[in-house]
Amino acid sequence: MEGKEEDVKLGANKFSERQPIGTSAQTDKDYKEPPPAPLFEPGELKSWSFYRAGIAEFMATFLFLYITILTVMGVSQSKTKCTTVGIQGIAWAFGGMIFALVYCTAGISGGHINPAVTFGLLLARKLSLTRAVFYMVMQCLGAVCGAGVVKGFQGNSRYQMLGGGANVVAHGYTKGSGLGAEIIGTFVLVYTVFSATDAKRNARDSHVPILAPLPIGFAVFLVHLATIPITGTGINPARSLGVAIIYNRDHAWDDHWIFWVGPFIGAALAAIYHQIIIRAIPFKTRA
Amino acid sequence: MEGKEEDVKLGANKFSERQPIGTSAQTDKDYKEPPPAPLFEPGELKSWSFYRAGIAEFMATFLFLYITILTVMGVSQSKTKCTTVGIQGIAWAFGGMIFALVYCTAGISGGHINPAVTFGLLLARKLSLTRAVFYMVMQCLGAVCGAGVVKGFQGNSRYQMLGGGANVVAHGYTKGSGLGAEIIGTFVLVYTVFSATDAKRNARDSHVPILAPLPIGFAVFLVHLATIPITGTGINPARSLGVAIIYNRDHAWDDHWIFWVGPFIGAALAAIYHQIIIRAIPFKTRA
Amino acid sequence: MEGKEEDVKLGANKFSERQPIGTSAQTDKDYKEPPPAPLFEPGELKSWSFYRAGIAEFMATFLFLYITILTVMGVSQSKTKCTTVGIQGIAWAFGGMIFALVYCTAGISGGHINPAVTFGLLLARKLSLTRAVFYMVMQCLGAVCGAGVVKGFQGNSRYQMLGGGANVVAHGYTKGSGLGAEIIGTFVLVYTVFSATDAKRNARDSHVPILAPLPIGFAVFLVHLATIPITGTGINPARSLGVAIIYNRDHAWDDHWIFWVGPFIGAALAAIYHQIIIRAIPFKTRA
Amino acid sequence: MEGKEEDVKLGANKFSERQPIGTSAQTDKDYKEPPPAPLFEPGELKSWSFYRAGIAEFMATFLFLYITILTVMGVSQSKTKCTTVGIQGIAWAFGGMIFALVYCTAGISGGHINPAVTFGLLLARKLSLTRAVFYMVMQCLGAVCGAGVVKGFQGNSRYQMLGGGANVVAHGYTKGSGLGAEIIGTFVLVYTVFSATDAKRNARDSHVPILAPLPIGFAVFLVHLATIPITGTGINPARSLGVAIIYNRDHAWDDHWIFWVGPFIGAALAAIYHQIIIRAIPFKTRA
Repeated sequence: MEGKEEDVKLGANKFSERQPIGTSAQTDKDYKEPPPAPLFEPGELKSWSFYRAGIAEFMATFLFLYITILTVMGVSQSKTKCTTVGIQGIAWAFGGMIFALVYCTAGISGGHINPAVTFGLLLARKLSLTRAVFYMVMQCLGAVCGAGVVKGFQGNSRYQMLGGGANVVAHGYTKGSGLGAEIIGTFVLVYTVFSATDAKRNARDSHVPILAPLPIGFAVFLVHLATIPITGTGINPARSLGVAIIYNRDHAWDDHWIFWVGPFIGAALAAIYHQIIIRAIPFKTRA
Repeated sequence: MEGKEEDVKLGANKFSERQPIGTSAQTDKDYKEPPPAPLFEPGELKSWSFYRAGIAEFMATFLFLYITILTVMGVSQSKTKCTTVGIQGIAWAFGGMIFALVYCTAGISGGHINPAVTFGLLLARKLSLTRAVFYMVMQCLGAVCGAGVVKGFQGNSRYQMLGGGANVVAHGYTKGSGLGAEIIGTFVLVYTVFSATDAKRNARDSHVPILAPLPIGFAVFLVHLATIPITGTGINPARSLGVAIIYNRDHAWDDHWIFWVGPFIGAALAAIYHQIIIRAIPFKTRA
Repeated sequence: MEGKEEDVKLGANKFSERQPIGTSAQTDKDYKEPPPAPLFEPGELKSWSFYRAGIAEFMATFLFLYITILTVMGVSQSKTKCTTVGIQGIAWAFGGMIFALVYCTAGISGGHINPAVTFGLLLARKLSLTRAVFYMVMQCLGAVCGAGVVKGFQGNSRYQMLGGGANVVAHGYTKGSGLGAEIIGTFVLVYTVFSATDAKRNARDSHVPILAPLPIGFAVFLVHLATIPITGTGINPARSLGVAIIYNRDHAWDDHWIFWVGPFIGAALAAIYHQIIIRAIPFKTRA
Repeated sequence: MEGKEEDVKLGANKFSERQPIGTSAQTDKDYKEPPPAPLFEPGELKSWSFYRAGIAEFMATFLFLYITILTVMGVSQSKTKCTTVGIQGIAWAFGGMIFALVYCTAGISGGHINPAVTFGLLLARKLSLTRAVFYMVMQCLGAVCGAGVVKGFQGNSRYQMLGGGANVVAHGYTKGSGLGAEIIGTFVLVYTVFSATDAKRNARDSHVPILAPLPIGFAVFLVHLATIPITGTGINPARSLGVAIIYNRDHAWDDHWIFWVGPFIGAALAAIYHQIIIRAIPFKTRA
């Protein structure tokens, strides 16, 4: 009872954890770190739930790109932004879709909808390499289809003229700043994913994860508020790739590496921060 | 215990489901798909709860149209949108009302407030045909009354001049794009409804549905962010019909079929996607 | 178990309730309507919790007026609304404060913060007349103090010039429309309060009320989105009175009756709707 | 059962608490105020969880400043605010980050991210003086780093020109108004923290705290809506200090005392209000 409530206490400290520094960091009895997922798990490939998860990732990323890029188009095509939902509306579209889609697909595929999230969870050994690669491929395919439908609705010339929602480093910022913005932005997102879906938190109070899609969606919203002026905000390589393929202009391809390297570095840092600092897994004595 | 938590794990995969492809897709012990609702259920017509549900649908759709169309009027009547709640405020009005009303009426009628949602749930055999028809009639009546009160407050000439909040395909978009936007938009909404109220999810963790009205409301908000520039966003035939009757201009009636055909196709696709792909009901061995 | 889940099912119908129309409407075993509160309860006046509740209502209404009227001032004093939080920001201030304050004071006083809410709950016999009158007095005192502090920060002349956040019927609308907007707006709010705090819902699933402050806050937000252009949105007589006293101009006092009569009628209609239609209390056989 | 539900009843009153005024205010059987934390607790300094908590506070405050000040820069650098997320977007950035970060770090450090919150909780004896000082130092360090990264991305000259996101009392307001706005604003925040994390509420219904980060984040959002035009809104001395050090202009340093004195007074008042009025701890008979 005591232990179960400990995790949700805000504004309080856990006086019960008293271990000498440098030894096993956590001794909560009711908490068991799940074993790391194997890199290759042949059995997966024969189960329907594996392919269903991939389809769910495809569909979620398709809907994500469709709604968000269409919102970007609606704002871009208006001369005065006051007659549109505005840049803040774009941020809501990205964050809100992640909230709704994570809520809907969490039980089917884990609700990644983002290769950087999949990469971070792979590093933490939460899923197999086979599954991670399959997810990333399905996410990128979904993103291409979603951006393609938007182009179909807008018409080719108007879509190109409005910039297509592509991620590029804005005039006035260096490539380094763009890369840094992508790294920290993805760190915020993946760190929130790790915190919200923490196995220890789950073990102690099974009700906490109910709210999990909300902070994850908010993290995406917040990063967009901050970095739309810098890079248009990627923090999701599938989103950047899907638009780049459909938009297909040189200046978008020139910066494209930033939207893979940045998110993957950010996700790796978040995985390291959570596993080493917060969970102290390397120093833990295995029970 | 294991099974209960499985459904809410984000960023994780369900390694426990291992069935050969093409056989029964789900074998979770604690999950029982409820039997399909009969098409006609004469007993319903004698119960007070049936009529109470219809009244609740009427009242909810009335309040939905009243608040949302009044918000649209407030934005339309101002020359500079900066002195209004803006297009984003309109999107919040639609999404927020669905959130609040689903929360309030879910326990009374299921909280549809939308013939497309009722249609999707009918296809999935979640309610009887009698009830579905009754709901749709009450929703349309409520919508007409809600739009009528807004016209009364605004005065006839001002209401007509401001476009009355009617759904039409905007200049610069083809009818096909408008229809497509309605189909995908309704898919997003009805897919969220199915995911959030999933019987399997309910069985496993009864706390998940608490949050359900929130993603459903957000889905409506997000579709409005994206497609207000294209069709004004219907995705709810009762909303479109109510306004069309009160506004009653030829150009609104010309496009009106789009706001019935689109939502019904979108709802049907969402029902099929959820029942076939996600729940795999046709392939399930009935226990 | 069955009964507990019934209330939160969205998109589903309750086939289990089958009573002949006109007889007892509800027979759920695990649901017991609490007995109506007595009109006068002398014991209350001797308990500390009674006065503590009054202080909490005072403090909440004080903070409510302070934050919201200060937000109104910030928007009003800027020539171009684009450099402010905008009208939508005002709506968020009102709705968001109600969300936060209901969350904070629900356990102390019930979290009314609004004489119309207190009046509606009094009609439904959820609290004694003594307590209702005490709450309303404390709410009005808190509102006067909150508006007074804002006037102190802004300076008298600037506060008066900016309209002081007073509720008046806007140019272009009749008094009748203003009254109607207040009635329906308060209906939306008080109906949400009744639905969210429903005793039947509490009995069945004690987790539902967790989210209750959120739809209540959203209801306030939504009514503001719709009716700020008509009356500035009262739906809370304490808020209207507090500002009217501090602003103290004739044209604000002329319309002031609308912001008492409207909310009280709306609250009464919501109480009747919930008790008669939804709960069918008059037709219930008392166990 | 009765007792557990009492706390979450909205729109209802607690008739069960009947104590003569001036004696012990609360006698709920299932509620036990935790003993006050000792001022100095030497054992803490040897536990890894103590340092982990400090690192989490550093990281959270770093991310908080990074996202929020970058959002401020994006809005400031645009001539017409319509092409940015606007002032409302800035308010969302501050409130949303607190929501997400409190959610993520509550289980690690209590999720303060603000020396004023730490100070309020110290007064209520929820943590030791050692820990409070350590937290405050880590928060200030994190804030300096976060603002520093923003300056690095923007470039020195542009950062200085745009005001750096520094807190100063705006033209047209007295220092007294600025101080008052900081006091009441911090009161709103810290009062929400106390209410949301109330030990009594925890004891009665362990599910209530799930939502706690949401009202806390909303409180920050709401105070920003109201007081950005007055002081830019501090209510967090680490945020004000971090920016002041990186911006380092005389006019920012001149007002800087307001952003320490104001928040600390506000936090102290909130602690007193909650402990004396709401919890009546001094009058309680210790069981």
